[in-house]
Amino acid sequence: MYLTQSLHRAVRQSPDIPFTAYRARTYTARETYDAVSRIAGGLIGLGVRKDDRVGLLSLNTDRFCQAALATAWADAAIVPLNTRWSVAEHAYALDDADVSVLFLDDAFLPMASALRERTPGLRTIVHCGDQPTPEGLVPLAELLAAEPVEDVHRQGDAMAGVFYTGGTTGVSKGVMLGHRQLFVTALGTLLHTRLPRGGTSILAAPAFHLAGFAFWIVGMMADMTTVPVAMFDPAGVLRTIEEHRAKQTLLVPAMIDAIVSHPDAGSYDLSSLELLAYGASPISETLLTRARAAFPSAQFLQVYGMTELSPSTTLLLDEDHDDPVLRRSVGRAAPYARVRIVDEKGTEVPPGTIGEIVAAGDHVMLGYWKKPAETQEAVRDGWMHTGDVGYMDERGYVYIVDRLKDMIVSGGENVYSTEVENVVAKHPAVAQVAVIGLPDAKWGERVHAMVVLVPGATLTAEELQAFCKQEIAGYKCPRSVESVAQFPMSAAGKVLKRELRAASGAA
Amino acid sequence: MYLTQSLHRAVRQSPDIPFTAYRARTYTARETYDAVSRIAGGLIGLGVRKDDRVGLLSLNTDRFCQAALATAWADAAIVPLNTRWSVAEHAYALDDADVSVLFLDDAFLPMASALRERTPGLRTIVHCGDQPTPEGLVPLAELLAAEPVEDVHRQGDAMAGVFYTGGTTGVSKGVMLGHRQLFVTALGTLLHTRLPRGGTSILAAPAFHLAGFAFWIVGMMADMTTVPVAMFDPAGVLRTIEEHRAKQTLLVPAMIDAIVSHPDAGSYDLSSLELLAYGASPISETLLTRARAAFPSAQFLQVYGMTELSPSTTLLLDEDHDDPVLRRSVGRAAPYARVRIVDEKGTEVPPGTIGEIVAAGDHVMLGYWKKPAETQEAVRDGWMHTGDVGYMDERGYVYIVDRLKDMIVSGGENVYSTEVENVVAKHPAVAQVAVIGLPDAKWGERVHAMVVLVPGATLTAEELQAFCKQEIAGYKCPRSVESVAQFPMSAAGKVLKRELRAASGAA
Repeated sequence: MYLTQSLHRAVRQSPDIPFTAYRARTYTARETYDAVSRIAGGLIGLGVRKDDRVGLLSLNTDRFCQAALATAWADAAIVPLNTRWSVAEHAYALDDADVSVLFLDDAFLPMASALRERTPGLRTIVHCGDQPTPEGLVPLAELLAAEPVEDVHRQGDAMAGVFYTGGTTGVSKGVMLGHRQLFVTALGTLLHTRLPRGGTSILAAPAFHLAGFAFWIVGMMADMTTVPVAMFDPAGVLRTIEEHRAKQTLLVPAMIDAIVSHPDAGSYDLSSLELLAYGASPISETLLTRARAAFPSAQFLQVYGMTELSPSTTLLLDEDHDDPVLRRSVGRAAPYARVRIVDEKGTEVPPGTIGEIVAAGDHVMLGYWKKPAETQEAVRDGWMHTGDVGYMDERGYVYIVDRLKDMIVSGGENVYSTEVENVVAKHPAVAQVAVIGLPDAKWGERVHAMVVLVPGATLTAEELQAFCKQEIAGYKCPRSVESVAQFPMSAAGKVLKRELRAASGAA
Repeated sequence: MYLTQSLHRAVRQSPDIPFTAYRARTYTARETYDAVSRIAGGLIGLGVRKDDRVGLLSLNTDRFCQAALATAWADAAIVPLNTRWSVAEHAYALDDADVSVLFLDDAFLPMASALRERTPGLRTIVHCGDQPTPEGLVPLAELLAAEPVEDVHRQGDAMAGVFYTGGTTGVSKGVMLGHRQLFVTALGTLLHTRLPRGGTSILAAPAFHLAGFAFWIVGMMADMTTVPVAMFDPAGVLRTIEEHRAKQTLLVPAMIDAIVSHPDAGSYDLSSLELLAYGASPISETLLTRARAAFPSAQFLQVYGMTELSPSTTLLLDEDHDDPVLRRSVGRAAPYARVRIVDEKGTEVPPGTIGEIVAAGDHVMLGYWKKPAETQEAVRDGWMHTGDVGYMDERGYVYIVDRLKDMIVSGGENVYSTEVENVVAKHPAVAQVAVIGLPDAKWGERVHAMVVLVPGATLTAEELQAFCKQEIAGYKCPRSVESVAQFPMSAAGKVLKRELRAASGAA
């Protein structure tokens, strides 16, 4: 299976049903087919050849979808760029991936000349927005006027894209994923849900990020109309769900929190939502309870993984959420995945023992773009080393205790931040939490909790310690607590602990 | 994904749940894992090496499942033999596939020495039944006593098996299928059903035939306990469904007919069945109506394809059965498949035009074993030529009008048997029908209907002609009708038209 396949199926089976619905603009499957086959012809006219990389710097729009499909149609691979990046970061990726043609939408027009200046290899910028096209850029209309070409049906292990990891640390690496990798996760995710075909899928998480992109594929596979939401805002998503009687969406917990906390949330009809997938970071029990109340018809599905795993490798199914223990896990191996916990030598450890989470299967990346050494380090004998630390129970549920680098060492004891966070998050005064290690003269590091409080609530370190001591060992309980208005978040919805540490002088 | 993967998942996620339940014997996932890893060790001890072919001549049993899993575990490929074949046919396949080790169950012990005599390359016969092992055969117990070996996790395009086509004409060809081919169809089938995980799957169709084998895989993928039924008999299947509260099974229409016609059918509780898949031949409207009444909770799923397509390429979904027009089709392209109707030059024809049905996708066979010329003839530019004739409507539904070779030419007009059969089948007196061409001095061939009548009913040629003329052109209506007690059926549940023709002097 492969990216353009759903479009071919849609044209054959339901040509007049909207393939995308973006704001007031609707493209049926037939119209999308026409647009994509012409844009692909235009790309070839611009010199794009087999296996070339085509850049995509765009909010979530119908044009984003068409540009991605047209790139595959023309036998090339996409390079979606993180919309929160600076010019320098974009230029790094464009240069690294040897991108010569870039799609750019309205939001990023102000960057166009700087991007061109800093990226000598960038021959052509195609403007895929609705504002007038500035001098020097090629309007999308020019590609849409090209002669349509036949789809090459790029598939299998042929590279679908280079996805730069929006990781919270280190230099950005391009993750090469084939069509096969992307589709095995989409199929496996659908296999574990009871999702009827057809209807509407809301593309609310950024599509440049693989979680959003993969869920776009899930929606296409389920023959749904994709409704891209350009920029996440809670009222907009609420309105879109109601208006389109949306069946499914994928969000990150921070987005779910914003939605269910919105003062008008209760006035929207959200009963159409049958699947609410979430991932990229854990969800607190408090938030989960509120979210289930807000979306009473929705199955909840937690996906855990990383870009290198296309991106999901474990799934926490809806029924698992009913169990207070299981719902602290990230679920079990997806049907296409093998998941193990290993020690430093790569040997599997017994259930209940903490180690590194590794995964193998058809969903493991092809490798890091132009980084064979890093690829070898990450994927050993077919096993992707996630860098996440956790354990597996007797029934295969995986519990994450921390990112390797997030471990706090205090008084010679290892403290896994996530474990502490899970406890702190249960305190009724806490809306969000991040636990970090702060330098400490006596203990080496001390456990420090940063919290966003529920409006109107207060919390002292003493109160929090007393609360935590009911569940975890004393040395794991936060010595100090700090209330903040909000956390620095990555575009993928992960709390940027590195920045938290820097702000607290612990970096 | 691959054959042994479900067993690994089961061991991790539900080790104590039965993996198979055969008669009074149950194997949990853990016990199956132990047995399979030892049988694989035993196979290696018998000299089986990477890519070797291991034969399987067995009714549907738990040992069949274990032998198939162990073969993949040991990096080899299975060759399941048609249980209705003669010694000569078995010997042909064993020799053609260079099989040196064969699993043989009780039912085929009388053939053992003849098989060995006629197949010089057959080194070892492993007796996988429950009767005493005759002299010269290796008892399965010996393999079960071997040291367990690690699974090689044979997967991807590595050959899973050579499946000899039980085609109704021509010489038997070995269809090579990889693990990927088998799993893409299993996933795609599950994708289009709303099947919860767990529960019980009845393996009632012969597992040596790919439809049965593939549905075994579907059950494993859905984390179900497999209940093999050694030999189909309607009362046995009725009892098994009730006893195991079975969730799903795959049958061929002739089996469904036998089940719903059984005098005691109404006394069994069949309400557990959530999915009834059927295929290998079309189902008449009368039978479908009766079957839906007998299995009120079941989704109906028609799969159409052939061994070369692993085996399904179109799916007629449950909701499609509600439409009297659509339910005469074989449904639409499965999510992993491309399906087209082409003319003799291989060019796609417009909707409504009759041509040959061809299919492409990840489910197309690797090729015919040692028959490169036949492979090239069958698979052109990635398109498997099915030899079936049909048309596609505007929404992608495929209607089969005949097998290429089944066409009757009468008075210069082409008559497609299936079209006539579909009409005859609607007559209230008709239980089953097969339409063939008989030699005719005047017209070249004349249309001849052979029917199995509903008990107590009668039917004259005049009555049938008058009935048919309401729906189809006069030249298509049967000139003669012949009532028979039953049809010669292939093991796959297809009416053997060749034998019908021979019996009627038309061969």
